[in-house]
Amino acid sequence: MLTLHGFNVSNYFNMVKLALLEKGVDFKINVVHPSQDEAFLKISPRGKVPCLETEHGCFSETNVILEYLEETQRGKPLLPKDPFERANVRALAKEIELYIELPARSCYPEVFFGGKVDQAIKDKAKADLLNGVAALKRHGEFSPYVAGNDMTIADLMFLYSIDLASIVAKKAFGIDLLADFPEAKELLELLGRNPHVQQIEADKKAEMAAFVAAAQAKR
Amino acid sequence: MLTLHGFNVSNYFNMVKLALLEKGVDFKINVVHPSQDEAFLKISPRGKVPCLETEHGCFSETNVILEYLEETQRGKPLLPKDPFERANVRALAKEIELYIELPARSCYPEVFFGGKVDQAIKDKAKADLLNGVAALKRHGEFSPYVAGNDMTIADLMFLYSIDLASIVAKKAFGIDLLADFPEAKELLELLGRNPHVQQIEADKKAEMAAFVAAAQAKR
Repeated sequence: MLTLHGFNVSNYFNMVKLALLEKGVDFKINVVHPSQDEAFLKISPRGKVPCLETEHGCFSETNVILEYLEETQRGKPLLPKDPFERANVRALAKEIELYIELPARSCYPEVFFGGKVDQAIKDKAKADLLNGVAALKRHGEFSPYVAGNDMTIADLMFLYSIDLASIVAKKAFGIDLLADFPEAKELLELLGRNPHVQQIEADKKAEMAAFVAAAQAKR
Repeated sequence: MLTLHGFNVSNYFNMVKLALLEKGVDFKINVVHPSQDEAFLKISPRGKVPCLETEHGCFSETNVILEYLEETQRGKPLLPKDPFERANVRALAKEIELYIELPARSCYPEVFFGGKVDQAIKDKAKADLLNGVAALKRHGEFSPYVAGNDMTIADLMFLYSIDLASIVAKKAFGIDLLADFPEAKELLELLGRNPHVQQIEADKKAEMAAFVAAAQAKR
């Protein structure tokens, strides 16, 4: 059986968890946090979560895990069959990751954990985030899903990137990131009614307070 | 016929160009630079290069283009057939991209174009870069290629990330990034003897002076 290593507050962990639940794949969770411990670096070379343990070994990186599930597991497909359409979905997912999730992430220490992020980093994050959202607006279909009629890996990346990015935009920059983007708000509402998304949200809430306290204590 | 949009100095453009040359795919190049012009944003939503034009339309993001070539073109495979081995190669490529290329990139304005990068951004880049190289050392096979006996997409990412990251490490931080990593140096030498790599290097050199002058003038 597959084992997903990570924890319920991690947004990348939850992308993979949602894929597994949507596909109906049987899996176990091993609760582990990012770490530079030698033992953990043996299964996750950069010390990140999630990583997926298979009968052949472990590997990391969310989009790589999603591709692997697509290639090896039955259940609901999260990539189209046609190569060009697949490329379009993968491009949307990558654009959300690089141009929305990553700039927002650079502000997480201040926005979520009571730390301080240098102004130069925040200025860059703000500019990048606005450009990233503009790119998604330009490229996304939102009919109703990011890439069209069907839920794909782009929706997993969207759901668990836009929520945190919106909080960052509001708390760090006083901006409503989706003010001018009603189709994105509608998709968040639609995804929010998905029972697996609701389960993941409940699991996250149950762990959140302890996680934030531990992260703040560690600083 | 496929058209690759971009320019010969772009390291991501050169990853795709090398894949096309290694596979023996017939393709055209359309010289274009990253831009936020409305016309270009129609084919590349974030204004980046490379993007690939197919009979069905255009899409961006280097790893997405590499996956598309793998799925649609004949010639030398750059991903293994086995799903777990594929995942391992993709994870290596992604780790090089996120944890080596991207931190190094944050310093390009100062190192290559005579600009100034804020100290906080440089401090973060240095720490990230060292952790990224340590992760690659931990995970890479280098026997002789990054993922084992055969050239894969991880080698394309390696070749055109490590070269620039090494210059950044030296110029911005006074560090020899590969001092303790002889297997990486050996792979760079091996790849440097590849005729397609040599062709790409010559094409890059021919455009470099004009590109740097234009980039500096734009600042």
